[in-house]
Amino acid sequence: MNQLTNAARASGRAPFIVGIGGTTRPGSSTESALRAALHHAEELGAETRLFGGEELASLASYSPEQSDRTEGQRALVEAVRRADAVIFASPGYHGGVSGLVKNAIDLLEDLRADERVYLDGMPVGCIVTAAGWQGCNTTLAAMRAIVHALRGWPTPLGVTLNTAGVKLFDAEGDCLDQQVSGSLRTLAEQVVGVRSPTVGY
Amino acid sequence: MNQLTNAARASGRAPFIVGIGGTTRPGSSTESALRAALHHAEELGAETRLFGGEELASLASYSPEQSDRTEGQRALVEAVRRADAVIFASPGYHGGVSGLVKNAIDLLEDLRADERVYLDGMPVGCIVTAAGWQGCNTTLAAMRAIVHALRGWPTPLGVTLNTAGVKLFDAEGDCLDQQVSGSLRTLAEQVVGVRSPTVGY
Amino acid sequence: MNQLTNAARASGRAPFIVGIGGTTRPGSSTESALRAALHHAEELGAETRLFGGEELASLASYSPEQSDRTEGQRALVEAVRRADAVIFASPGYHGGVSGLVKNAIDLLEDLRADERVYLDGMPVGCIVTAAGWQGCNTTLAAMRAIVHALRGWPTPLGVTLNTAGVKLFDAEGDCLDQQVSGSLRTLAEQVVGVRSPTVGY
Amino acid sequence: MNQLTNAARASGRAPFIVGIGGTTRPGSSTESALRAALHHAEELGAETRLFGGEELASLASYSPEQSDRTEGQRALVEAVRRADAVIFASPGYHGGVSGLVKNAIDLLEDLRADERVYLDGMPVGCIVTAAGWQGCNTTLAAMRAIVHALRGWPTPLGVTLNTAGVKLFDAEGDCLDQQVSGSLRTLAEQVVGVRSPTVGY
Repeated sequence: MNQLTNAARASGRAPFIVGIGGTTRPGSSTESALRAALHHAEELGAETRLFGGEELASLASYSPEQSDRTEGQRALVEAVRRADAVIFASPGYHGGVSGLVKNAIDLLEDLRADERVYLDGMPVGCIVTAAGWQGCNTTLAAMRAIVHALRGWPTPLGVTLNTAGVKLFDAEGDCLDQQVSGSLRTLAEQVVGVRSPTVGY
Repeated sequence: MNQLTNAARASGRAPFIVGIGGTTRPGSSTESALRAALHHAEELGAETRLFGGEELASLASYSPEQSDRTEGQRALVEAVRRADAVIFASPGYHGGVSGLVKNAIDLLEDLRADERVYLDGMPVGCIVTAAGWQGCNTTLAAMRAIVHALRGWPTPLGVTLNTAGVKLFDAEGDCLDQQVSGSLRTLAEQVVGVRSPTVGY
Repeated sequence: MNQLTNAARASGRAPFIVGIGGTTRPGSSTESALRAALHHAEELGAETRLFGGEELASLASYSPEQSDRTEGQRALVEAVRRADAVIFASPGYHGGVSGLVKNAIDLLEDLRADERVYLDGMPVGCIVTAAGWQGCNTTLAAMRAIVHALRGWPTPLGVTLNTAGVKLFDAEGDCLDQQVSGSLRTLAEQVVGVRSPTVGY
Repeated sequence: MNQLTNAARASGRAPFIVGIGGTTRPGSSTESALRAALHHAEELGAETRLFGGEELASLASYSPEQSDRTEGQRALVEAVRRADAVIFASPGYHGGVSGLVKNAIDLLEDLRADERVYLDGMPVGCIVTAAGWQGCNTTLAAMRAIVHALRGWPTPLGVTLNTAGVKLFDAEGDCLDQQVSGSLRTLAEQVVGVRSPTVGY
């Protein structure tokens, strides 16, 4: 289910996966989950690049009418341009994608005139963390709609992590919950194009 | 972006696409659109099977606690079981998938214990017809959420047809609108796994 | 936030709340939850009428092109026509409203030509039960979109009940979980137009 | 259907409506639509306050872990705190609420510990402008989910404006399309709590 990453392998290079997400808080569970998913992707042979909360916070408000781009904006656009797949990770703030993460995604408008328009044909993994299941899931729905608008294929599994009252990652970003870790690995498999031998998600 | 249909081709057989949708009204635009998409899929080398409004109306109310199945119910489940991809088509009744179409989809619970669970890994095309754009699009969102719950990959393009005050298909089911026809062809390409040379949707 | 139910009270009659929902299984948690919400509404002074799984299963497939209605179909339409508020309750089957419940809602098309079109201006409570949070919430989103299409006001609180591995109601339909019971009471308060003194949901 | 604005009138003061929305582009159709809706609300006796694109662009990235607020951030929070109703207006960027608008909404977390939590019990109007109907409607769905998470009542009518290839407002912000103008007036009526005599939306 993944011609792009297969094509990458066939041409002898590792599939390249870009992760975009996090919050302004260092060590946020959102960014930790994204890091973990990218780590699983690396174990599956992918090359990865993370744009985390700090980098997202450094981006100016996206202005469609302005064409000047900072170095940080260009780096994000260029990475997605050469990516084989993408993973988005957002906290669910008031039931939706955070302004911080959405501002970075808005910038992908710069891919509109590419030969491959936006994320056309790419698998796109979605991760949401929120304090409560309703917020997790309305945010996931919003994120998947964004992926469709960008012409990507949202992976069947979207990972929703309810962070209310639990610690899912330690200070080093290691996942403390085996089921969460398994979900993030399945997401990575779907993004990289390796089908999981088991289907227990 | 389509290992299943590619696998079918590799093994020397045509990919098999199942279409489920329509209304109780013969010649409905919903069923005409689905028929047209399946026809495009056949032109791309697929074998297809349509379950239209008449067959859907013959299905009893789905009861999870009952395991007896009629011949019609078994035919639907068996077709999806051996399918490489699926297309759902529903009218948007009050902003959602019609009870008639959803009742047929509910029956796919019978695929839960399969080796391939539900629609795991399958591309699933979505078509919605409604008298108004809001109804088209809230129904499309609901349908994509259903595809995700069934572990499928909703195709990037979901086809929404606003039927308010226009005739999109003639009495023979032929499409009268070139843009609509083009969208249904692109959907078929995404479902069958042929990437479109042009990206102008 | 509730002119209709207030108007009912002002004119000396109890607000009338119609509940529509359930599954084909007697004693389903969906129907028990709906019953409990209606019971709370009665405690707040409302008159209520339940259309449960058995009645919903007796309705024929909704056909927009047919105007003949059975007694059961007329009873449902008439009850909603004179209601001050409505509560919908559905299981989340494959991430969406069940065909059984949607088929009953589809029938509300008969209210299209009323002076009060569809559910115009009415508060509408939403209850979803599903084995898993993702299914609960995608179904809730679909249900709220349906309420909007019918011109109603979905209550701020939508009650989602994850039934995976827990028993929320006993054989008599009594709620075994205090938090669930509290949520259903808050929903009833929002539907009946009584503002809760506490806001801890 | 509007206890809050009715309560305002009963106490002899005009209902106070806050509008939040726009883009970085001066004279955007998003901001023009919001201005028009607020203008209709004023004609219905409301007092209004607009936070448009320029003010939204001046807000820093929302950081949940920081409690320092700028004057601009405080002004937004205080206005919503004393509002009887709110209208959100966003462009649909890639099928979702823009990062700019969402960043302002994220800031409403400061209302969490208020006696009236977030937008509890308030009517909230939603306006979306996008170049295409799918983007309009997935964005509207995301916005309504946000309203629910904030405990508000999204108005039955959500206004979606497809700006592809048409000019809906002139340079002064006056609406050039009578149907659009009527929709924005109906939205204002629903937000202010005046029921429209006609129901032709």
